Amino acid sequence: MKAIYFDDQSFSIRRMDRPQPKSGEALIRVYVTGICNTDIELFKGYYGFKGIPGHEFVGVVESCPDFPEWQGVRVVGDINIGCGECLRCLGDDPRHCASRTVLGIVNHDGSFAEYITLPVKNLHEVPNHLSDEQAVFAEPLAAALEVAQQVHIHNQQKILVMGDGKLGLLIALGLQVYNPHLILVGKHTDKLAIARQQNVETHVWSEKFKNELAGHFDVVVEATGRESGLGQALSFVHPEGIVVAKTTSHKLSAVDMAKVVVDEIQIIGSRCGDLDLALSFMDRGWVRVEPLIEAIVPFEQFEEGFTLAQTPSSKKVLVKVSDGE
Amino acid sequence: MKAIYFDDQSFSIRRMDRPQPKSGEALIRVYVTGICNTDIELFKGYYGFKGIPGHEFVGVVESCPDFPEWQGVRVVGDINIGCGECLRCLGDDPRHCASRTVLGIVNHDGSFAEYITLPVKNLHEVPNHLSDEQAVFAEPLAAALEVAQQVHIHNQQKILVMGDGKLGLLIALGLQVYNPHLILVGKHTDKLAIARQQNVETHVWSEKFKNELAGHFDVVVEATGRESGLGQALSFVHPEGIVVAKTTSHKLSAVDMAKVVVDEIQIIGSRCGDLDLALSFMDRGWVRVEPLIEAIVPFEQFEEGFTLAQTPSSKKVLVKVSDGE
Repeated sequence: MKAIYFDDQSFSIRRMDRPQPKSGEALIRVYVTGICNTDIELFKGYYGFKGIPGHEFVGVVESCPDFPEWQGVRVVGDINIGCGECLRCLGDDPRHCASRTVLGIVNHDGSFAEYITLPVKNLHEVPNHLSDEQAVFAEPLAAALEVAQQVHIHNQQKILVMGDGKLGLLIALGLQVYNPHLILVGKHTDKLAIARQQNVETHVWSEKFKNELAGHFDVVVEATGRESGLGQALSFVHPEGIVVAKTTSHKLSAVDMAKVVVDEIQIIGSRCGDLDLALSFMDRGWVRVEPLIEAIVPFEQFEEGFTLAQTPSSKKVLVKVSDGE
Repeated sequence: MKAIYFDDQSFSIRRMDRPQPKSGEALIRVYVTGICNTDIELFKGYYGFKGIPGHEFVGVVESCPDFPEWQGVRVVGDINIGCGECLRCLGDDPRHCASRTVLGIVNHDGSFAEYITLPVKNLHEVPNHLSDEQAVFAEPLAAALEVAQQVHIHNQQKILVMGDGKLGLLIALGLQVYNPHLILVGKHTDKLAIARQQNVETHVWSEKFKNELAGHFDVVVEATGRESGLGQALSFVHPEGIVVAKTTSHKLSAVDMAKVVVDEIQIIGSRCGDLDLALSFMDRGWVRVEPLIEAIVPFEQFEEGFTLAQTPSSKKVLVKVSDGE
């Protein structure tokens, strides 16, 4: 099969063997995969990653020896693959299994390839109404909606989402269902326009914004992608408020913990979420993801797509790996 | 009256006018006051403080024109004095009033003096059984118990308290009522012994401890007093666990926020607590504070006491300001 192989800050399109499904796993033919900022970080070598990246995908179950009823089903998948034996896994939540592998990130080849394997318990059937280009957003939208699974988000709160990157936009669009008054602040007028067209109040960063809304918010979601974002988030939250952290930078953040202590602020790290919930949000039309697509490139043009994805102004770049029937 | 005046990293014993109680305030004659690490930070000039410090005290209401029934009552007091008009104050919780003054810390002369003033609503009557030397611990013990007011502490959790300073010891002793199995880790065998004598499991820092208990705890309370403490606390908590931050350093902490995000850790800042609860814990004998006393010095020997309080091995230094009847 064709695959993109990352090694030492370079990549190549290679011919590789198809992965073999283990017990309980399905072999999935990838239709569409998305390029995430995490892939760019992996490429830059911050985590010593070598292998096939890619963790946002939609595809079809090609074979599934243990559960043949899954064959032919169009699916998206949870990226965390638990050991199956620890307390986390026995409790059916492998997201924090200490021995987990992670699709395209940790010791499990990812979806920048024609085929991947995943345990059947990681799979979620895609509703018929959703196109492949929509369904591939299930993983990042689930991560966005995770905020509302951790914090009780409701419409009496003052909420700020910081960052108009792909994740910031999905967070604003997703949380808006719970709190229509939330504010999204970012740098790029064209990206902010995507949220505004779906009725989100948006602002471009300015000194006026920073001064007037300092200490104003009950909940601030930090999705700037910059290690300095947390310090800025702390300036917007009022005492006893909540900062939800979404940025995974390889750099350390310098944090004024005295402010966190004196103002009794909560900081909550937030990662992966519920893909069924995300599929449902899209299927109901609550979040429209199509305007977030920058480009859809064929697999052979991965290099152009990956270069495009690295430009700061880029929205989501999708890669078409194979066609459906 | 006699008072200790801090100015530009020096202090002097001065003769000053007694403070005048405003409407709703009591004039309190200070019996005993405690030296806190915050006072040492104020002395070092980190917050540009000038004035009379001191916020841990027990004393007697000398006069109270608006509420004469308080006259002669032995009291301790909440240190936050709200504006009385904002939503926080109208909700009877001035701890986070944006315009508050703070006894001995922000724009309100403190208890390193013969007399202070405080609003009557800040006062808590001291039970007869408690000595002055016990009652003066009400403020720091309340700050310690605040952890259990913010996080549901119960005896099924694995809890680590980091730091055997005055606050760390009070936290371990106070939280032990909720969770008898908690562990206190610190540097000083003599201080750890105080907790051990009250049945707390204690450990001296070691590489073995760090390696064996990495990722082990549900709740970690960081009270090391060092800006590096938070990073260390994050290494002890498991995914989805809670770190309660108690250290107020003037230095920024370098935090690996990617770990906080990937492991979905909560960090909760924690400051002042409920003085009535603290008095009750001492009155019931649940926390015995006397072994935490390093020395009780007369007011005239404040300088010796303050020097002693600054030695890293020192426990709580108390200053006897005046005698009871």
